[in-house]
Amino acid sequence: MKPILSIIKIGGNVIENKSELSKFLTLFSKLDGFKLLVHGGGKSATEIAKKMGVESKMIGGRRITDEKSLEVITMVYAGLTNKNIVAELQANNCNAIGMSGADGNAIQAHKRPVKDIDYGFAGDIDGINDGLLAHLLTLGLTPVFCAMTHDGKGQLLNTNADTIASELAIGLSTLYDTTLYYCFEKNGVLKDVTDETSVIRKIDTETYEALLDQKIIADGMLPKMTNCFHALNNGVGKVCIGNVSMLEKNENPYTTLIL
Amino acid sequence: MKPILSIIKIGGNVIENKSELSKFLTLFSKLDGFKLLVHGGGKSATEIAKKMGVESKMIGGRRITDEKSLEVITMVYAGLTNKNIVAELQANNCNAIGMSGADGNAIQAHKRPVKDIDYGFAGDIDGINDGLLAHLLTLGLTPVFCAMTHDGKGQLLNTNADTIASELAIGLSTLYDTTLYYCFEKNGVLKDVTDETSVIRKIDTETYEALLDQKIIADGMLPKMTNCFHALNNGVGKVCIGNVSMLEKNENPYTTLIL
Repeated sequence: MKPILSIIKIGGNVIENKSELSKFLTLFSKLDGFKLLVHGGGKSATEIAKKMGVESKMIGGRRITDEKSLEVITMVYAGLTNKNIVAELQANNCNAIGMSGADGNAIQAHKRPVKDIDYGFAGDIDGINDGLLAHLLTLGLTPVFCAMTHDGKGQLLNTNADTIASELAIGLSTLYDTTLYYCFEKNGVLKDVTDETSVIRKIDTETYEALLDQKIIADGMLPKMTNCFHALNNGVGKVCIGNVSMLEKNENPYTTLIL
Repeated sequence: MKPILSIIKIGGNVIENKSELSKFLTLFSKLDGFKLLVHGGGKSATEIAKKMGVESKMIGGRRITDEKSLEVITMVYAGLTNKNIVAELQANNCNAIGMSGADGNAIQAHKRPVKDIDYGFAGDIDGINDGLLAHLLTLGLTPVFCAMTHDGKGQLLNTNADTIASELAIGLSTLYDTTLYYCFEKNGVLKDVTDETSVIRKIDTETYEALLDQKIIADGMLPKMTNCFHALNNGVGKVCIGNVSMLEKNENPYTTLIL
């Protein structure tokens, strides 16, 4: 039997709310088994960019990462956000180690080729260093990844945190019984987006198809779900979607995805 | 016989000069044996602070680290500078892993007590996690430290890079035959500060006393030398002071300190 590994991704909404982040980090620290955290950046990068006179360009909700934006992202994601999370986890007796994909060559990527849109220094993942991560976990360390990778030629790349989480989960599923958790502001995948109590508790391939047909899964949830099923189809045992309290061992509803 | 470990500290003058930094990182990558890099921050933190409207306070050449300054330092030292160095080392086939003292609880410190001056969030080092660092080195990793530590209670602390380098060297000298290198803008300790060719090639305890008496070692060099002899008196085999080219295996003069 493979050892259990939990990979948890938190987004901007958790990071930017200091008390919500503290609540999450306390829960995360108490999780049994091997674990790994991936965090996005969120609005703080945009705010700091503004202060520094750097314009944040977005197309269809995605950041266009020019040279100056990449500098700000490197400062905020890999510096400010990552190190404060690591220090707070240490205070919770969780031996965290902050990483970007460049550290230990943990996540190799290439600059996204220009098609219709030039995303600038955005990275698409080629592979992960599962051997190194397994070693770090064995040493009792908890890797904390920011949303950055590198191309192996000296270039840092801004990379979607959801994708980093799923690629890490896929890569590590040969060694671990891996569960992937996406923490966001909602209680889970909702039948009715206006009703937080309408959480769909379980989604498998069959119900997924049905939900797509009924257009219940649409808009922003669509790429998230595609990502989840991509993980499930490539070795990840289970994907959970919900808010921070899904890590509590109580009866709070959240969505579990399985094949 | 203990394995060889080289600990190299580079300061602001190397970091801020892109071609000098590249030259250094190429030389560093080619060093034989175990190695570890410590980098300071330098002027870029002050410049970015200015852009963000954060005032940099200095007393006697030392930074007063208030909350806003600590944020900037965390962004620049742990983010921008550290990750770009790591990415460039990776491009040089050196498997670097960027760290602050909080990562892996590598360097424990406490906030400097207020006496005459309140240095704010400045850290004085209590100990290092030599076991973890030895494990990382054994995995083929090269730790790259920025000038930050933590107090174990969630607080990051700005910490002098020279001191980090010497405390790491001292802590690791029980496991390794450790040499500490301080790379700076001068060729070494100079007999005449206006003459770069007047490098004192070797300083031992006896010549050190004589140089102090003759006031040849004074001003900024005094704390640097105190730091060096502190390391030598606590297990470090050798300390070298000079510019980047001291890592080249040629006949460039630099200063070697031994007991």
